[in-house]
Amino acid sequence: MMKKYSFKDDYSEGAHPEILDKLVAVNLQQSKGYGLDDFSLYAKENIKKVLNHTDATIHFVSGGTQANLIVIGALLKPYESVIAAETGHIAVHETGAIEATGHKINTVKTDDGKLSVTSIQKVLDEHIDEHMVKPRIVYISNTTELGTLYSKSELEALRTFCDANDLLLYMDGARLAMALTAQTNDLTLATIAKLTDVFYIGGTKNGALLGEALVINNKALQSHFRFHLKQRGALLAKGRLIGIQFLVLFENDLFFISGKHANIQAAYLAHRLKELGYSFRYEPVSNQVFPILPNTLIEKLNQNYDFHIWEKLDDKMATIRLVCSWATTDRAVKDFISKLS
Amino acid sequence: MMKKYSFKDDYSEGAHPEILDKLVAVNLQQSKGYGLDDFSLYAKENIKKVLNHTDATIHFVSGGTQANLIVIGALLKPYESVIAAETGHIAVHETGAIEATGHKINTVKTDDGKLSVTSIQKVLDEHIDEHMVKPRIVYISNTTELGTLYSKSELEALRTFCDANDLLLYMDGARLAMALTAQTNDLTLATIAKLTDVFYIGGTKNGALLGEALVINNKALQSHFRFHLKQRGALLAKGRLIGIQFLVLFENDLFFISGKHANIQAAYLAHRLKELGYSFRYEPVSNQVFPILPNTLIEKLNQNYDFHIWEKLDDKMATIRLVCSWATTDRAVKDFISKLS
Amino acid sequence: MMKKYSFKDDYSEGAHPEILDKLVAVNLQQSKGYGLDDFSLYAKENIKKVLNHTDATIHFVSGGTQANLIVIGALLKPYESVIAAETGHIAVHETGAIEATGHKINTVKTDDGKLSVTSIQKVLDEHIDEHMVKPRIVYISNTTELGTLYSKSELEALRTFCDANDLLLYMDGARLAMALTAQTNDLTLATIAKLTDVFYIGGTKNGALLGEALVINNKALQSHFRFHLKQRGALLAKGRLIGIQFLVLFENDLFFISGKHANIQAAYLAHRLKELGYSFRYEPVSNQVFPILPNTLIEKLNQNYDFHIWEKLDDKMATIRLVCSWATTDRAVKDFISKLS
Amino acid sequence: MMKKYSFKDDYSEGAHPEILDKLVAVNLQQSKGYGLDDFSLYAKENIKKVLNHTDATIHFVSGGTQANLIVIGALLKPYESVIAAETGHIAVHETGAIEATGHKINTVKTDDGKLSVTSIQKVLDEHIDEHMVKPRIVYISNTTELGTLYSKSELEALRTFCDANDLLLYMDGARLAMALTAQTNDLTLATIAKLTDVFYIGGTKNGALLGEALVINNKALQSHFRFHLKQRGALLAKGRLIGIQFLVLFENDLFFISGKHANIQAAYLAHRLKELGYSFRYEPVSNQVFPILPNTLIEKLNQNYDFHIWEKLDDKMATIRLVCSWATTDRAVKDFISKLS
Repeated sequence: MMKKYSFKDDYSEGAHPEILDKLVAVNLQQSKGYGLDDFSLYAKENIKKVLNHTDATIHFVSGGTQANLIVIGALLKPYESVIAAETGHIAVHETGAIEATGHKINTVKTDDGKLSVTSIQKVLDEHIDEHMVKPRIVYISNTTELGTLYSKSELEALRTFCDANDLLLYMDGARLAMALTAQTNDLTLATIAKLTDVFYIGGTKNGALLGEALVINNKALQSHFRFHLKQRGALLAKGRLIGIQFLVLFENDLFFISGKHANIQAAYLAHRLKELGYSFRYEPVSNQVFPILPNTLIEKLNQNYDFHIWEKLDDKMATIRLVCSWATTDRAVKDFISKLS
Repeated sequence: MMKKYSFKDDYSEGAHPEILDKLVAVNLQQSKGYGLDDFSLYAKENIKKVLNHTDATIHFVSGGTQANLIVIGALLKPYESVIAAETGHIAVHETGAIEATGHKINTVKTDDGKLSVTSIQKVLDEHIDEHMVKPRIVYISNTTELGTLYSKSELEALRTFCDANDLLLYMDGARLAMALTAQTNDLTLATIAKLTDVFYIGGTKNGALLGEALVINNKALQSHFRFHLKQRGALLAKGRLIGIQFLVLFENDLFFISGKHANIQAAYLAHRLKELGYSFRYEPVSNQVFPILPNTLIEKLNQNYDFHIWEKLDDKMATIRLVCSWATTDRAVKDFISKLS
Repeated sequence: MMKKYSFKDDYSEGAHPEILDKLVAVNLQQSKGYGLDDFSLYAKENIKKVLNHTDATIHFVSGGTQANLIVIGALLKPYESVIAAETGHIAVHETGAIEATGHKINTVKTDDGKLSVTSIQKVLDEHIDEHMVKPRIVYISNTTELGTLYSKSELEALRTFCDANDLLLYMDGARLAMALTAQTNDLTLATIAKLTDVFYIGGTKNGALLGEALVINNKALQSHFRFHLKQRGALLAKGRLIGIQFLVLFENDLFFISGKHANIQAAYLAHRLKELGYSFRYEPVSNQVFPILPNTLIEKLNQNYDFHIWEKLDDKMATIRLVCSWATTDRAVKDFISKLS
Repeated sequence: MMKKYSFKDDYSEGAHPEILDKLVAVNLQQSKGYGLDDFSLYAKENIKKVLNHTDATIHFVSGGTQANLIVIGALLKPYESVIAAETGHIAVHETGAIEATGHKINTVKTDDGKLSVTSIQKVLDEHIDEHMVKPRIVYISNTTELGTLYSKSELEALRTFCDANDLLLYMDGARLAMALTAQTNDLTLATIAKLTDVFYIGGTKNGALLGEALVINNKALQSHFRFHLKQRGALLAKGRLIGIQFLVLFENDLFFISGKHANIQAAYLAHRLKELGYSFRYEPVSNQVFPILPNTLIEKLNQNYDFHIWEKLDDKMATIRLVCSWATTDRAVKDFISKLS
């Protein structure tokens, strides 16, 4: 229905066809409500095997903001806060959803959207008594909102620091598939399950109609979690809808294949842009690419393509954001590249 | 996947096949995110035509609890409260979701799950100064949680009373299709749009995978509503998922046909139970039937059927709840009836 | 400044003169802010001696609603609720302060304003899964809002029940002085400290300018409590103001003497009303008396006295509330009695 | 009770003796509860005369954090936010009290603790759709947390900007007396009443035992405000306690005399420090002085004086904060000065 091809985001299409096939196949089977159905149970068991963590508990929710506000609202005591990069999704793009659960976000300025031990320590140093909130959760996104990713050693450093400072580590995995299939990645789902207290595995931006799988690794945080889900309006009557999708995503590696596809298409775009001499606002390593282009070229591209203008730099140049997904076709990428010069 | 046939609720299956067909048909078309897609826009236009109220605004949300907490949280000032029947969904079955938005529910004891002018006036009489909350919303469900429904004159009386007392009238329409297609109903969607400030049209319990259509009739309440949706985690990245479903539900009257089917199947069950001499906890008029049965029969039925035991009355008798839906087959109803005697 | 003598409440005057004397005496001494001053520290030590519980922690707050909302907001997880009598202060007279912290109050109908094991068990029986809140605190007032009081055996029964059901017991002691000095009382501060998790010792209604002493007996609930106080705006810069007052109240038994005075004055009133053949809505045992009087007499009394009309019974009779305090003079009581016949 | 003389803050002593005198004088007069007493009514009338704004409504609250959380919680819709300087009291020193009411604070980096039209415009430019909060209140402190103050032209510029952008202007006046009596000040209470929507007149830091007078100038914001007070635990049963104090503060200019005294004592300190060649972190213009001193001198002074070490600059130097108040004696100032060299 859109006339221009969209590189605006990774949720412009419906679902991966294999997912729809499964929804159709089991449609008239009866199942229990509110996520207690067998589809969801099997899906969770499958994911736990991949996590190599049978003690984890998994809950399916509808989207990233819902996941974030439920996790953070559930984990924090009233006076506790969450530390995030200034560019973190919870800090800028959730309409105060975290604050609406009663909690402050302590933001940290970064170059690349990633938190480091040093930057977290600085926040702790500034929060010393009962006149200030008590930082308790470290919120990171992988990939970040700037398309960058955490290495295993970086994540290990955060874990060690959190342990030493009684902090909880929570990873927003809206684009976790792209992180895990990026060329420079050295993390696995099992490692992430080991190093974080809670994280979520994004479905919406990786081929599902909707749905994220919340994984609670830390046993001390698992109790009564379904109460939180229900209270926030996140317990779908037909919870099977998400369960079935994650069943498909984690059969035959569809989750990873889809993420890798998105990265590869983005890498093509980035490669050609580099060849043409353009630079990037952030190093392109996943499915989001942020080239700095002349306004004239941007206007020309915009006649046929939809994308986000990220930042106006001056009268002549701007950064744009190009996003590829499981659904981005070779043809679309080639056509776009052909319009670059 | 369930061995027993379930009369437990109206959300045991997936979606009406026409809905799945449409999801498949448009799957790879690109569209805008967050409910700004053309599918959703068309669906809203269609619904507004049926409402005969082009000034209404419509928002799609994932489920009933989400709808309720967003509407009530958005409409009330911090010191205001909502009046509901003691059996109202918001009062008992939402894990304190309304209180979690900061607001008290003033509950009213009823026989049939319905609020009346008299019962609301009593609440107002008890709330007279700043030491008490100020009641502001009247929350009703149609059909109610007990399967009963509001007549046009009852709804008109509530509207008149609300106007006279500066109250807002909000209808929870999780099972609105069943209300509107009940044999004794004299309301239409257009009348409801005229008589309420806000209501929602339930999709989840009437053949959708998920989704409710929130209708804001009162123009004074429409402003900035998408901010509320986003803040509560209700703005789906692929909002089209619900838009497409409501597009189908309101094409060719599928919404009404599905609701009527549920009622007719329930009426068969009720009719036969009456013939056998059983009485009902609440008069059976929609798709929920509450017969009072001997425990011995309940145990026998329970070997083949899943249903909810509503209330133990004494050592010999109990009320059960039987629910039919768009998906309840003639065969299931006949088989169940055959097991009654 | 009021022309009529007031039996309306127990906070019509300023403070007990001994309290003012002390405020004047130490006025220009410098001390630390935010309740860390030596006056407050000494006051707390003195109270802990009376409690015979050196492990308790004590915090001074400004009033009852503030105490209640901080305690309940601090102790509950988001999905948990508090059980209270339908007449409990938190349920009717705090403008939804508890709900504003995000929590539902489960109310119980009572005859005398007191919770019993049976009535609490009924609430537990109705709350069985994640679609409902999880009751966690039992809130009682002593004396109650109806002037009645808990016996030692009743409080022991509640404690045993709470232990068996993983519930916390919280006592609102706005009028605790009157409870502890009532003729039928068999509780002591030390017993209450032993049997409750948290309670507060009311100052405002017993001769202080303002102030309640929150006592946290349960060590598991003590951590970081000053953060809660600060977040709710309850940490006074000159916290000494309340500390000094409690220092005086617990020197030379002023707290008990003042409470007893209020009870004795009320007992005079009740005694004479009984002699005149009037009955009472609730048995008069503390400083609040609820006689049922003819409207003609009420009108006559109202020419010279201010009091609360509690409940209109019919065209001829109504219940009024008469409250005595530390400041109620013998003369006022005698004059009032003289006007009765 | 403290061995060292304290320049730590302006709330180390009790109350101005005239205030205590009045409390004693009227102590046994009966009055209405919850701030409806005649003392409070008269005090409000007096203040309104000084404000030259008879349409304002005034409410007395216990402290600054309470004032801030009630005003901001009352004025904002759920999705709206408040803009503040990064050093604003609400942003750093209220333990997330504002976020606990559900609202985000958009912070702005400043040199002097003051907001400007430019810095606010930048925040507005970044908040453009429903994925972000909607800034609605501009929060300023006068004097600021850094001792600086707003000029009339600066305040007028903010007002004009707020009007043009549908923003509300709220001034935290914890130290308003010091602002209004600073040598460079050109504002009056009447001007502030004209230029702000809401502000509060600080009592606690200017000689009261406790208490701030909240002034709501904007008529559209006045409705039902006592409900907010009660819900937040701010409606004192003996509201007269604050009313009487403000009665005294605004009789015979005690409010201004006390503020001026604090400024003069601080100016002595600053003057002498300047003479000795020390510089200041922020220009000293009110009762808070921030000299940069050698650590050796700081250690020496600390043997006899209590003050706040604001910021360690390097191994040799640090900024300290010296605060004078209505109670700071000439002798203390002279003694301190004598220890400087």
